[in-house]
Amino acid sequence: MENGRANMKPVTGTSQVTCTAPVNIAVIKYWGKRDERLVLPINPSLSVTLSQDQLCARTTVAASLDFKKDRIWLNGQEQSIDAPRLQKCLGEIRRLARKRKHEEERMGDLLGCCVHICSENNFPTAAGLASSAAGYACLVQSLAKLFHIDGDVSHIARQGSGSACRSMYGGFVEWTMGKMEDGSDSIAKQIAPADHWPELRVLVVVVNAGKKAVGSTEGMQTTVKTSALIKYRAEHVVPSRQEEMRQAVLERDFQTFGEITMKDSNQFHATCLDTYPPIFYLNETSKHIIHLVHRYNQHHGKIRAAYTFDAGPNAVLYLLQEDLPEVLALFHHFFPATTNNSERQFVRGLPDVQRKELSADLLDSVGLEPSPGSVQYIIHTKAGEDPQVLTDPQQALLDENGLPKKQT
Amino acid sequence: MENGRANMKPVTGTSQVTCTAPVNIAVIKYWGKRDERLVLPINPSLSVTLSQDQLCARTTVAASLDFKKDRIWLNGQEQSIDAPRLQKCLGEIRRLARKRKHEEERMGDLLGCCVHICSENNFPTAAGLASSAAGYACLVQSLAKLFHIDGDVSHIARQGSGSACRSMYGGFVEWTMGKMEDGSDSIAKQIAPADHWPELRVLVVVVNAGKKAVGSTEGMQTTVKTSALIKYRAEHVVPSRQEEMRQAVLERDFQTFGEITMKDSNQFHATCLDTYPPIFYLNETSKHIIHLVHRYNQHHGKIRAAYTFDAGPNAVLYLLQEDLPEVLALFHHFFPATTNNSERQFVRGLPDVQRKELSADLLDSVGLEPSPGSVQYIIHTKAGEDPQVLTDPQQALLDENGLPKKQT
Repeated sequence: MENGRANMKPVTGTSQVTCTAPVNIAVIKYWGKRDERLVLPINPSLSVTLSQDQLCARTTVAASLDFKKDRIWLNGQEQSIDAPRLQKCLGEIRRLARKRKHEEERMGDLLGCCVHICSENNFPTAAGLASSAAGYACLVQSLAKLFHIDGDVSHIARQGSGSACRSMYGGFVEWTMGKMEDGSDSIAKQIAPADHWPELRVLVVVVNAGKKAVGSTEGMQTTVKTSALIKYRAEHVVPSRQEEMRQAVLERDFQTFGEITMKDSNQFHATCLDTYPPIFYLNETSKHIIHLVHRYNQHHGKIRAAYTFDAGPNAVLYLLQEDLPEVLALFHHFFPATTNNSERQFVRGLPDVQRKELSADLLDSVGLEPSPGSVQYIIHTKAGEDPQVLTDPQQALLDENGLPKKQT
Repeated sequence: MENGRANMKPVTGTSQVTCTAPVNIAVIKYWGKRDERLVLPINPSLSVTLSQDQLCARTTVAASLDFKKDRIWLNGQEQSIDAPRLQKCLGEIRRLARKRKHEEERMGDLLGCCVHICSENNFPTAAGLASSAAGYACLVQSLAKLFHIDGDVSHIARQGSGSACRSMYGGFVEWTMGKMEDGSDSIAKQIAPADHWPELRVLVVVVNAGKKAVGSTEGMQTTVKTSALIKYRAEHVVPSRQEEMRQAVLERDFQTFGEITMKDSNQFHATCLDTYPPIFYLNETSKHIIHLVHRYNQHHGKIRAAYTFDAGPNAVLYLLQEDLPEVLALFHHFFPATTNNSERQFVRGLPDVQRKELSADLLDSVGLEPSPGSVQYIIHTKAGEDPQVLTDPQQALLDENGLPKKQT
């Protein structure tokens, strides 16, 4: 882990920090806030932070006395800096920085500076992955480095986007619910590092989706307001699941890990359906993937793959390395690429795709009609590290004047 | 209501009874048994019995000393008489008949007779409607008449198929959960007759479905065994909903009736999704219908139509007569018939289809792409009466020898 500030210039010019931050995929789902303003959840959650080799946000923040106002560019477009969540993060970082100013010589004039922020994802937003988690984690990490704030800032990332707090740590991470009114104990904690379970693999299955469904902020508000089941889930189901899941991770118990992962994904989507009006995130392809996974596991008499779905139709599968060839072969068979999503790029992030011959028995057990083109592509990845500081100025997104570099 | 026994012959020959029985559509759903053998539910439920003009089962039962064994024909095919649910109903009827024999001269030698049973539905089983409810209600009603059993026999129908007990009464019917170990208090009761709410209309929307999903008997077993939410639903959500719904029916309060109907359908499907492995009954067309209904209601600022779905993708809509032209026009617009399901037969059971011009505003509010052919046809119907005895021998399904008549 690189925590250096090698690219920090003296404050008399422009101070600049560039970071990357990871996506995380929850296995115990966060759905529902008890405090909208502070982004405090109604239940704890648990996730796996994914490697930044495949999926990450990158953010450069710069501070200068020459800047006239705070500005932000997202994926190449300047956006309003007034978005409340963004203001909250900026405000909290500056508040912390002020508190620490007397301890820190190096803070200099930073607190008098405006900041420029430039951020992008290395994956299409259309992929429907939790881009806001990586994005806010990256923003908060970059700002914390810029303002010389050490220690946990996951409670600040949380106020940008709830699940962003989990992207502040690598490996296996839990977000505690917390009890304090100010939310200061609702933070992320690593329960095991990324290399704790090296055999664990992740497949992000990007499904061909129709139009965008209900956004998660609005969706979870409506669920909390209208679902008769969500409160029971939060109070009576999740707490024990969270404990079991933590134990399963610590013991690398894939059977328990997989079963709870699938059950919790299904229960989250069940509460969406119990919302009024109901919210549907799973589409027909999602259902086929669920069917495929259960039949595959049933065929082998044990859990070899586990699915989970966030607020969209894309599946994320957890599996062990040894089963990767067979699972990939199943996807090639039942969700074959079409000319539009050509074979070559169908599986990404896996240099040599070994593929296993599928037995007629197994194909028969699955019993699905192949559905060409319904899966766009698959990203192969695994658990990964926490946000990283990039020291190579080439990798910064802002130039020396604090403006977005021209796209190359 | 015709309760005569006009077609009863003296027992020295063949005694024969023919009945029809209705379908019922629950607005508070039954899903889950606390006793598999006695078919005792984990929660009360409430339904509307539909008119037999459109949908019914018809059953002829005959008893004769000449019959060598009990036999049954369903929809033209002889079936095994040994099916446990069937045996249960036959056994219970004979047990009751034996108990009453000393009181009744007319019982004669009936108890020594074997019976022949012939049953059919006037609607395609493929329609995925609750054919077993109508079927078992019809069987039990016919046998009760044949064996001269008066009084409530809904507890016997219940043991054939849970929801069949509700088809023993017309109008608005509740199935009480009961507390007795022998299930004798888990019976159906009419809360209001069919003519209580004459403006109420029912549209059965038959959706083009793929393969048959998990059957309801197996499905509810798995839900009770694996869903963390079903117990909470049964114990803490349904009881108060049942009361509210009963009140809404008594007051003809369509706003409350519609809202609870939709919420309870969604919650039933939510518990299916919370089942492990999850069960999906709704398909993309079902979801489009749900979307259509909510947008339509939102457009008008009140509930004008309410959907409910049983263990399959077909929708049943409740609405008031005055809104029928607009709702039908919406279905014509968004789910137009194709040449395969030609316009002429698209809406059934409605002699003159008035259709309303749809405003551009409303079409815009709904915001769906029309989906030709995804709805096969729509049956227009309303609340209807309890099982009926048919006195015209022409309408019997068995001939004078107690064998199925040749199909004409």
